[in-house]
Amino acid sequence: MCDEAGSSDNLTQCPQDKAVVDMDHHHKHVEHVISPTLTRIYMDYNATTPVDPEVVTVVTEALNEAWGNPSSMYLPGLKAKDIINQSRESVARMVGGKASDIIFTSGGTEANNMVFHSVLEHFWKSSRSADGGREENYHLNGKSIRPHIITSNVEHDSVKLVAEHLVKMDKADVTFLPVSRITGRVEVEDVMAAVRPSTCLVSVMLANNETGVIMPIREICQRLKAAKRSSSCPRILLHTDAAQAIGKIRVDAQELGVDYLTIVGHKFYAPRIGALFVKGPGTMTPLYPLLFGGGQERNFRPGTENTAMIAGLGKAAELVTANLVKDESHLLDIRLYLEQRLLTVFGKEKLRFNSHFHGTDTLPNTCNMSILGQGLHGRSVLSTCRRLLASVGAACHSDHGDQPSHILLNCGIPYHVAINALRISVGRGTSREDVDIVVEDLRDTVEQLEQMN
Amino acid sequence: MCDEAGSSDNLTQCPQDKAVVDMDHHHKHVEHVISPTLTRIYMDYNATTPVDPEVVTVVTEALNEAWGNPSSMYLPGLKAKDIINQSRESVARMVGGKASDIIFTSGGTEANNMVFHSVLEHFWKSSRSADGGREENYHLNGKSIRPHIITSNVEHDSVKLVAEHLVKMDKADVTFLPVSRITGRVEVEDVMAAVRPSTCLVSVMLANNETGVIMPIREICQRLKAAKRSSSCPRILLHTDAAQAIGKIRVDAQELGVDYLTIVGHKFYAPRIGALFVKGPGTMTPLYPLLFGGGQERNFRPGTENTAMIAGLGKAAELVTANLVKDESHLLDIRLYLEQRLLTVFGKEKLRFNSHFHGTDTLPNTCNMSILGQGLHGRSVLSTCRRLLASVGAACHSDHGDQPSHILLNCGIPYHVAINALRISVGRGTSREDVDIVVEDLRDTVEQLEQMN
Repeated sequence: MCDEAGSSDNLTQCPQDKAVVDMDHHHKHVEHVISPTLTRIYMDYNATTPVDPEVVTVVTEALNEAWGNPSSMYLPGLKAKDIINQSRESVARMVGGKASDIIFTSGGTEANNMVFHSVLEHFWKSSRSADGGREENYHLNGKSIRPHIITSNVEHDSVKLVAEHLVKMDKADVTFLPVSRITGRVEVEDVMAAVRPSTCLVSVMLANNETGVIMPIREICQRLKAAKRSSSCPRILLHTDAAQAIGKIRVDAQELGVDYLTIVGHKFYAPRIGALFVKGPGTMTPLYPLLFGGGQERNFRPGTENTAMIAGLGKAAELVTANLVKDESHLLDIRLYLEQRLLTVFGKEKLRFNSHFHGTDTLPNTCNMSILGQGLHGRSVLSTCRRLLASVGAACHSDHGDQPSHILLNCGIPYHVAINALRISVGRGTSREDVDIVVEDLRDTVEQLEQMN
Repeated sequence: MCDEAGSSDNLTQCPQDKAVVDMDHHHKHVEHVISPTLTRIYMDYNATTPVDPEVVTVVTEALNEAWGNPSSMYLPGLKAKDIINQSRESVARMVGGKASDIIFTSGGTEANNMVFHSVLEHFWKSSRSADGGREENYHLNGKSIRPHIITSNVEHDSVKLVAEHLVKMDKADVTFLPVSRITGRVEVEDVMAAVRPSTCLVSVMLANNETGVIMPIREICQRLKAAKRSSSCPRILLHTDAAQAIGKIRVDAQELGVDYLTIVGHKFYAPRIGALFVKGPGTMTPLYPLLFGGGQERNFRPGTENTAMIAGLGKAAELVTANLVKDESHLLDIRLYLEQRLLTVFGKEKLRFNSHFHGTDTLPNTCNMSILGQGLHGRSVLSTCRRLLASVGAACHSDHGDQPSHILLNCGIPYHVAINALRISVGRGTSREDVDIVVEDLRDTVEQLEQMN
């Protein structure tokens, strides 16, 4: 899954996961003349994270030494299989699941697509077995019904577009619940009110990628499970895309009460690979493959396993489990410091935090804010900044021109504020010094842009 | 995509891509006591190849330096995007296509599934636009028809099981053409005879993974294109899974005349990633995404790009393009030497080559043979061998117990011969000395097994 977009320069990774400018390469892409001594500071960790050096080592080792086909019965194959299973344990531990609950996928997009596919296959299979035919409609009290899905209006495209496609193909009804303009959250009562006899899936992200708002997944699951429902209605399956939450806050699938949970490596210092947590796949929770082939991942996800990337995912998961308390507290400290510095420099009148909602918990690392004023559109600010690398919205929307984020608009942020928005997301390696530099950079940039107006 | 299975020890990669035993690890998996001084020799290159050291370097560099989100508009993102596009050029060059014809996928399984999905979506879309409704049947001269697919009975599971699933779901009719028991090939005349008015896809592998038999794809494409067909019939799309051919023989999609061609990295010293060649995707040739999400790969394959693995695939493709003539001649030399040594040691009466078919071209590196006699089942031989690592069939079938390969049976190899089969596939780094050792190992093994009988 992709995320967020931003401004303009080249960077290489230094051991502290910090961005430094490499001015030798790719000069053609530098739109503005930049002093060659300046280093860029990466604060777009919600878009993607650098790969942790320990993870790179594990991936490289696996490429060199565990290249055997994991299905082969001799040791090179078994060694690869062992690595994959160790990784499965680590990923499971990170999200409070069992190893058998983890299915490796190519990434979050595939994991999210797999959930929707599985739920609908299950709906139709149940329907077929109920009426003995091939009817692609569920029959409730003799009436044919279509599957109904509840999701939010601030989901990532890998949920949103799947849902929209199903509607377009006339395969499902979907309620895109608007988030509250007061709390920025999907409200539990709204979910409950949207439930129909035909509802078979509720899919709501754990934390929003742009605002950092944490959704009340646990409460939604609890209420849905407690609700009385006719036994002739399909079971409501519960999914959360935890892409942005993992590595930033504690994520425990058991505690949340979800049936499916999406895991995206490149948001927590792993390479581009993902996994889907499924509570008892194929037994307690329906799971149907999107692909057919060689039987890997217990037939749920065939294709020769990407051993090296899976090894990296496992290592990154270990690091999350080991360091979460420390990381979370560091991220919070840095983000609060950033917000405080921004307030000091720009003042309350000029600054609007788009990620502050009354009584709502947010990710510790995500600051979404607008510097108010003409000529200060997010894109202009970022392309003028000399140090900061950040974004205005999901990277997959980076070529959508100078439009404000629909996520912010859906959260009730007024148009003139949303179009000035910057999403600054800090990481494990971000320091207070980085924040000082970035805030100074923003101050200079805003001064410069205001003089041009 | 997976492949082939075999015997029993641990190996690490040495610079020449050769297997050496690492006796310190994974002793638990060693089923037989082995002298710790012996090195294992890997001859299962059709199952998977080691990752080329140059490729590992490129992957590691990309993990360290090109971790930016390729959709981000600042330089770290653009740098990643550049690497991906360079890789796309290299992969295209390797198969005689344009860069715009290459869609990166998670592997061959996904690529093969995508072809079947696309062809059927196209069939139904055409049908719907023809009758203006939602009917999932094609109407030909007022008669409703189902899509018909032609494939062979020796395909990899990632084609075979997709086709079987479509039949099971009542979504398509499939002809599984038996290969000739004389040539081991799909015969062009058989393909032509199988064509129906409803035929919309012919999918035949370029080279078989077990016998190495090269299929007459070019002739099939030529004949199908030349055949007269009513304009009311759907177009017949042509697909070949080139997983086993790339890096061993010249593969040119243009020359072959196919619309789709599957590319599998881990069969040519790249990591576990794949690509699909599509001749003019979405314009000349229909292509429909299996997944929905952030718009990557021109919306044909969304999901944040696996930059590092894609970089590795590009490097491996460059190496194939640069070294193919040399590699092909080396592979052939080694395989012929192997077959000659086997004949010398075991004699004509005791040896049966399952990959020799009258007048049929085969891959240069693949020797499939049976040492005749009781107690010499392929699995017994491989698990007794002290040096050779090879396989008896596709790795994805490695847990199917002591059954002969259905591929060999379908090629007309008698049961008692097929159950003794060994598939020995050599690689770039395999030497004549390796062959001498392996043949000696096989001689000792057979002696030992015969004494036990």
